[in-house]
Amino acid sequence: MAQINSNYLKLPGSYLFAAVAKKVAAFREAHPEADIIRLGIGDVTRPLVPAVVEAMHRAVGEMASCETFRGYGPEQGYDFLIDAVIRAEYGSRGVGLDRDEVFVSDGSKCDVANIQEIFDSGSRVAIGDPVYPVYLDTNVMAGRTGEAGPDGRFEGVTYLAATAENGFAPALPERPVDLIYLCSPNNPTGTVLSREELAKWVAYARETGAVILFDSAYSAYIREPGLPGSIYEIPGAKEVAVEFKSFSKTAGFTGVRCAFTVVPKALKARAADGTLRSLNALWNRRQCTKFNGVSYVVQRGAEAVYSEAGLPQIRQQIDYYMENARIIREGLSGAGYTVFGGKNAPYIWWKLPDGLDSMRFSDTLLERCRVVGTPGVGFGPGGEGYFRLTAFGDRERTKEAVERIRQAELFA
Amino acid sequence: MAQINSNYLKLPGSYLFAAVAKKVAAFREAHPEADIIRLGIGDVTRPLVPAVVEAMHRAVGEMASCETFRGYGPEQGYDFLIDAVIRAEYGSRGVGLDRDEVFVSDGSKCDVANIQEIFDSGSRVAIGDPVYPVYLDTNVMAGRTGEAGPDGRFEGVTYLAATAENGFAPALPERPVDLIYLCSPNNPTGTVLSREELAKWVAYARETGAVILFDSAYSAYIREPGLPGSIYEIPGAKEVAVEFKSFSKTAGFTGVRCAFTVVPKALKARAADGTLRSLNALWNRRQCTKFNGVSYVVQRGAEAVYSEAGLPQIRQQIDYYMENARIIREGLSGAGYTVFGGKNAPYIWWKLPDGLDSMRFSDTLLERCRVVGTPGVGFGPGGEGYFRLTAFGDRERTKEAVERIRQAELFA
Repeated sequence: MAQINSNYLKLPGSYLFAAVAKKVAAFREAHPEADIIRLGIGDVTRPLVPAVVEAMHRAVGEMASCETFRGYGPEQGYDFLIDAVIRAEYGSRGVGLDRDEVFVSDGSKCDVANIQEIFDSGSRVAIGDPVYPVYLDTNVMAGRTGEAGPDGRFEGVTYLAATAENGFAPALPERPVDLIYLCSPNNPTGTVLSREELAKWVAYARETGAVILFDSAYSAYIREPGLPGSIYEIPGAKEVAVEFKSFSKTAGFTGVRCAFTVVPKALKARAADGTLRSLNALWNRRQCTKFNGVSYVVQRGAEAVYSEAGLPQIRQQIDYYMENARIIREGLSGAGYTVFGGKNAPYIWWKLPDGLDSMRFSDTLLERCRVVGTPGVGFGPGGEGYFRLTAFGDRERTKEAVERIRQAELFA
Repeated sequence: MAQINSNYLKLPGSYLFAAVAKKVAAFREAHPEADIIRLGIGDVTRPLVPAVVEAMHRAVGEMASCETFRGYGPEQGYDFLIDAVIRAEYGSRGVGLDRDEVFVSDGSKCDVANIQEIFDSGSRVAIGDPVYPVYLDTNVMAGRTGEAGPDGRFEGVTYLAATAENGFAPALPERPVDLIYLCSPNNPTGTVLSREELAKWVAYARETGAVILFDSAYSAYIREPGLPGSIYEIPGAKEVAVEFKSFSKTAGFTGVRCAFTVVPKALKARAADGTLRSLNALWNRRQCTKFNGVSYVVQRGAEAVYSEAGLPQIRQQIDYYMENARIIREGLSGAGYTVFGGKNAPYIWWKLPDGLDSMRFSDTLLERCRVVGTPGVGFGPGGEGYFRLTAFGDRERTKEAVERIRQAELFA
């Protein structure tokens, strides 16, 4: 009889965001009159900018006529988009890349979830704590961990604690690891690894042969000069790191679906027979076998993000969200609450008073303020005692949420 | 040091279609004047139909304004599309499905590649021979096979031979298997499993506890009444089968990207602890963790395929391709060649004279007729001695290709 992949059963029943959504739905049913403001899930609310909309209309038009119709595109993405990415995202940062080092996809979530497939099933994994849950969950599914212990930590995983105490910059692992997931600007803490911190990780990976999986989906939100927006700004990083970037938060593409992943050709890892193998070739094989490229219409939209018209429009959209971030950050700290992030990222990481359970606080915030956020524990045991608010809401609603929180005197 | 997934190294260097494309490119460089007709890769050439184009324009327009903008959609797809699928693809066949049994995705290739993840790594796999290479390759990558032998067959895989001798309807396996990949209408043979044949597989799976992974991406091409277009037309199939369908060939979506997979809630398999588990719940968990839904614009386009305006437009497009299939089939058999398929599928499966190598014949056809097709061996060792032509070309070009082949007296 067919057997399931029993590793799936190690995971808790439902994905965090789904669990919170369910609670909110139940609350809404019980209080149909309640005016709920959602600062929970990291989803954008501003429409696509005009340059993107025009490009997508144009592409739909092309698909309507024999002469300009496009069938299967390259699994790796069209050159027009890859060239734009190399120029705008990397050339601007002094980083040179070849076309075949960039892989366009339908989302960073997919790529950070799938990348582990090209590594040995026995690989030792290090992940931030707290962090975006996909890194951990996909490695649990792949059987690289034991069971979860009573503290919620999975056996065999190296957790890299990021707390207020260490400035949200985790220390190097104390035991050897093979794969290191880093996320900067960080989801959920909203903090960014400095050049020195990132250089520390690159040096460590070069020394030990570990591979860094660098999730940089929020780099467009970095405002302070000098903070690295790509790991390849660190010399030597191409030999040790894969980088993930996305149009989701950069350009409001959460419902449009486009991202890209850089796998440098200089990046190698060892095969069972001891030979060194190109991870670029393996990822290419993975994508050619299991993926069929991103919608042509979507790729034309993504290209327009970097156009002369698109760039200032996108900039304005990010400014809008970052002004929300400022309002939340200053509103809450002005009321005596302790918050982090929100300066170079669309997330505000709210430190709860000692001993306050983040899941319970989530209920309190919903009941007393009608505001939805995300309990820190959803991002790992190290997120307990924190709460995430996002800057992706509407301006007036964000102001209103902050005002309600200020009035509520929550921890009084 | 990081180690790669060495199972990847068991696969031959490059994916078949890429290898053929490379040869064609080299030929083109050597003969820049050559007028090459491509009947190789299974890609469509007709533009999107008006109903789909209108729906996509409308959806792009919605994304341009705050009030109608959509961010993240459900990972499983929007209800508007799922409802249309249930009504048009299943209701019409007398099959009832719940919404949460249908999972919209960006391609059947992705789904048939990813489905194996939810099964135990030790699962015994049976695949057609010849067949679409993704079923095999993804199981090789996952470590469910040994190395390839000198005959190209992977150790540990059960090959289900489909040949002219058995009417392209494979016999039941002689040793126990857990997962059975079936493809009907078949790529590459262009043949369809009859109701009796399909019922034989369902009965076998019910008896042994195996799960059938039924790839039905070409069901829209079935013309003969009485042939099953869904495995769920067979009573009891919901308890043993997953089904994959796609808009790629049905509606010219190869560059648009949309498909769907049905995982019935009645379908169960055993966990390591002996309990029976719902595959629907596992696939849902997989998709929620590793996938972020299909582009909203694309889903609106797919919905329009089933609209009152869309249905006859799509029908006309399929008629166009099927008339190409008739031209190829009758043109070649009229010239004394032996061909199969092309009656209920857009593929013609050409039997080569005994002893003729399909890769070498590919070169001959290119050199003598300037026609590109696909060597049968690319679909498995059982495809050796056959050659695939597709009906997705332009009408006049297809006629011209057939005329050239008729003139060439290839096996004289």
